[in-house]
Amino acid sequence: MELLRLGPIGHEIPVVRDDDVHYDLRPLTADIDEHFFAESGIDQVRSALSKGELDVIAGAEDLRIGAPISRPSAVVCVGMNYAAHAREAGAEPPEAPVVFFKMPSTIAGPYDQLELPPYATKADWEVELGVVIGRRAFRVASAEDAYSHVAGYVLGNDLSERRFQIEESGGQWSKGKNLPGFTPLGPWIRPAAEVDPGALRLRSWVNGQVRQDSTTSDLIFDVGQIIHQLSQTMPFEPGDVILTGTPQGVAMSGKFPYLADRDVVEMEIDGLGRHRQLVTVTR
Amino acid sequence: MELLRLGPIGHEIPVVRDDDVHYDLRPLTADIDEHFFAESGIDQVRSALSKGELDVIAGAEDLRIGAPISRPSAVVCVGMNYAAHAREAGAEPPEAPVVFFKMPSTIAGPYDQLELPPYATKADWEVELGVVIGRRAFRVASAEDAYSHVAGYVLGNDLSERRFQIEESGGQWSKGKNLPGFTPLGPWIRPAAEVDPGALRLRSWVNGQVRQDSTTSDLIFDVGQIIHQLSQTMPFEPGDVILTGTPQGVAMSGKFPYLADRDVVEMEIDGLGRHRQLVTVTR
Repeated sequence: MELLRLGPIGHEIPVVRDDDVHYDLRPLTADIDEHFFAESGIDQVRSALSKGELDVIAGAEDLRIGAPISRPSAVVCVGMNYAAHAREAGAEPPEAPVVFFKMPSTIAGPYDQLELPPYATKADWEVELGVVIGRRAFRVASAEDAYSHVAGYVLGNDLSERRFQIEESGGQWSKGKNLPGFTPLGPWIRPAAEVDPGALRLRSWVNGQVRQDSTTSDLIFDVGQIIHQLSQTMPFEPGDVILTGTPQGVAMSGKFPYLADRDVVEMEIDGLGRHRQLVTVTR
Repeated sequence: MELLRLGPIGHEIPVVRDDDVHYDLRPLTADIDEHFFAESGIDQVRSALSKGELDVIAGAEDLRIGAPISRPSAVVCVGMNYAAHAREAGAEPPEAPVVFFKMPSTIAGPYDQLELPPYATKADWEVELGVVIGRRAFRVASAEDAYSHVAGYVLGNDLSERRFQIEESGGQWSKGKNLPGFTPLGPWIRPAAEVDPGALRLRSWVNGQVRQDSTTSDLIFDVGQIIHQLSQTMPFEPGDVILTGTPQGVAMSGKFPYLADRDVVEMEIDGLGRHRQLVTVTR
């Protein structure tokens, strides 16, 4: 089953898709958000589905697909978590997870247009496996235990403007990670029970040409290690999103141009669906 | 006038204090949060006060003082924004504002106990002027214009664990900034109209001994410049909090020990009140 939020920006309704049929979740929850996950929302959905308690939504295919989670309390990002990407960025693979944050207000739907200001001339794509936290995680005892804190997985694009991230940042990356719409998520959250996060192919394309093509088996720190290690220093709340890092094949490598007006960015992860963002440069 | 949130953790009520009298804001707003600021809440409070429409709260002095804003969408921090602090941290003053984030879930009340895990052996204090955004700020035209986006000011402690911030971070500071309770705010928000943010004395003490004693006139990037410059790369939403940086006098300088069990941290900014946190080390 897949959890989605469908409808106009700011007016999305919570939906579950099961065997390609869309069901309205509004009798169960106002939204897919931190409260939904804190109250074992996925278990409730599964139960309601099995009892046939949910109404089918007609015409769901015609609705805009929003990000599948309403603004969480934090979007935590792990950097340099694929060895080949660390090398293309001119860095050594890290000895412990490297962390930065994105503003939750930068979350966008997977097909929303990406509007860049004219001075954002070094905008870059990053396909990433996203983790949605289901249960508060602080000082988790082991990498194995960490998985019990995961509600599901989601495809994310950790869009990055490299001038603000690197050249004019004083070394702190967050500055180039937060232009509006810089965190497309979706199209859906797939429950953790249905995903093997250690063996997912993840790919990105620009204008139909492949850019990234790797697998999460190449992660330096896997999902369990990330949550175990980071939870020693920060509390993850239900609904929080962790973006686990991007593999090689970004523009920063020098092999590809940065994003420009009318470019189309696409990305995909096995079982987690696909994104398509049209880039426009505004004044 | 001062905006406060009073009551047990998670059950605070919105309050305004005017001439030392506490008034209940619940007829006006459910909470002091992003919605309050987005709907010109301070103007509404001022109007209700002048019309005598608010009820006095008896016994307000006996209630716990919470953070004066309910969890905002982002807590944005500016680093190395006082030249003498940059030097004590072994860095050059930056050429542009340096940014990192704290998780909004780390916000605590100004008198809440600070519980450190036993391995947090390099916990450090940072007294800071906090800015509360009143109106969305993206691509603000000038530093002068930026002030029209400010709702008010608040005293903040940007608590930092230096091992996780610097030694085991891969250079990204956020990792050491997010232990639970690491962002005490309060006791109140004072409306921007009542504050000159460029001339505020800010001080901190540990166990009664002075640690920091500076003024916001020493800021490298002042409030207007911070919002103007950062708003080119990130959108600030109503209720977002910007911590503007800390002056010299932290433990990282090597002049003072890091925080230990039973230490008491106090801090104060002119007109923005005082904090007092008892440190306890948990197992």
